[in-house]
Amino acid sequence: MSTSQPSKRQKTSKDTPYELLYWPGTPGRGEHVRLALEAAGASYTDTAHQEGGMKTVLSHISPENLGSGTNPPPLAPPILKHGSLLISQTSNILLYLGPRLGLVPPAEEDEDAIYKINELVLTALDGLSNEAHDTHHPIANVLYYEEQKPEARRKAENYIKVRLPKFLGYFERVLKGEASGGGEWLYGGKMSTADLVLWQCLDGVRYAFPRAMGRLEKEGEYGRVFGLYERVKGVQRIKAYLESGRRQKYALGIYRHYPELDED
Amino acid sequence: MSTSQPSKRQKTSKDTPYELLYWPGTPGRGEHVRLALEAAGASYTDTAHQEGGMKTVLSHISPENLGSGTNPPPLAPPILKHGSLLISQTSNILLYLGPRLGLVPPAEEDEDAIYKINELVLTALDGLSNEAHDTHHPIANVLYYEEQKPEARRKAENYIKVRLPKFLGYFERVLKGEASGGGEWLYGGKMSTADLVLWQCLDGVRYAFPRAMGRLEKEGEYGRVFGLYERVKGVQRIKAYLESGRRQKYALGIYRHYPELDED
Repeated sequence: MSTSQPSKRQKTSKDTPYELLYWPGTPGRGEHVRLALEAAGASYTDTAHQEGGMKTVLSHISPENLGSGTNPPPLAPPILKHGSLLISQTSNILLYLGPRLGLVPPAEEDEDAIYKINELVLTALDGLSNEAHDTHHPIANVLYYEEQKPEARRKAENYIKVRLPKFLGYFERVLKGEASGGGEWLYGGKMSTADLVLWQCLDGVRYAFPRAMGRLEKEGEYGRVFGLYERVKGVQRIKAYLESGRRQKYALGIYRHYPELDED
Repeated sequence: MSTSQPSKRQKTSKDTPYELLYWPGTPGRGEHVRLALEAAGASYTDTAHQEGGMKTVLSHISPENLGSGTNPPPLAPPILKHGSLLISQTSNILLYLGPRLGLVPPAEEDEDAIYKINELVLTALDGLSNEAHDTHHPIANVLYYEEQKPEARRKAENYIKVRLPKFLGYFERVLKGEASGGGEWLYGGKMSTADLVLWQCLDGVRYAFPRAMGRLEKEGEYGRVFGLYERVKGVQRIKAYLESGRRQKYALGIYRHYPELDED
């Protein structure tokens, strides 16, 4: 029996429930954590569906909070609590959850899988989540969209023409490559947190830019990427989750549908 | 003897040299990897100082590259090669290097330190590196700064007024908190990759916005953060590195000094 970090933690606290702390109202960055928990059939609580959930999140990110014990204060949600552990940053939470939920191969099987998958997670979040957000808030997130509309149009135009094809093309290459293990999943022939992250990013960008994404899908250059999108959506637990009340609708979050920012 | 992932890899390949693949010409995101290697006194090669280094980097991020073996293709540098392993994304490389270089406590000592430190690394990179870059390129990185100057001025103004104090205030709180282990270093009373990342970010933002950062330092609200800046700079190996030819000068990279973007 290995004493590696993930298996040790699994042993000592496998019955400890996961607690997701995130805003109610939109899928947001918390959705990446939800999809991992849902795909694994893990039991978890979610402040997005709790009375007082907003207040709980705000207390954690308050400028008065200095953290506690060995947990530094979080800057922003999503936040994961697991027993006495409290961590933030989307990719970091997935790093912790991945091996525990069977969504990253254990180190004994594939020593460096965690780094390969984390690399793909970070790249998807950069280009398809953060940059998609910046199309409607290119100047400042404390200003309204209406206060940065001309800038948003320029940014969105570049996003659709340059950035989106760059990132779709990148993931198409990943799926073409040997490390994908056959082109159905991003890494090692099995669904991982990277596939779930890419799925949510694609779904969000599709909501925000339906015309651009419709054209890109039709042109067929990124067939493997759109194939992965459908594949994830068809996974039984994901399908059940998406049809449940736990899945929230897009609203004024990271992904926003402003028709004037989409292509004609 | 534990068989956890980091110690296993250290044992099997402790003599394998680290290879950093990054553009020549500016410190850039590669600097975070360099500082970790330098702080640990590790031996490494660096394409920034090799003839043909640019070509090597370009071949890895070429749209023709599908990766090889179990390594997916990298989207962008920095890239780390270590034996047959090839990984990218700054925080991901530091995740790999941290425990190997003694800059993150081993799992046997502090099981979850890696997640706490990674969280701090990601937060510093988000707010003080990526957002600092976006002040001079708010619309598109394929356009010149001169083509997005009015937008850059609006973005930089907001950065100095809102974002910079937010992130400096956050790290001041981290240093005030119990998890810092005394307020000299961000986590656990010892220098980690998070301190090195924060140092480089502060150094870059200082180069880009000397007037704003000078005022913020003088006002004294972030005394612990500026104290950490001086503390890292005084670490013997870091000091020697910064005085060496291996440290590159800032130029047209992430951190740029455009006086018109700084405060008056």
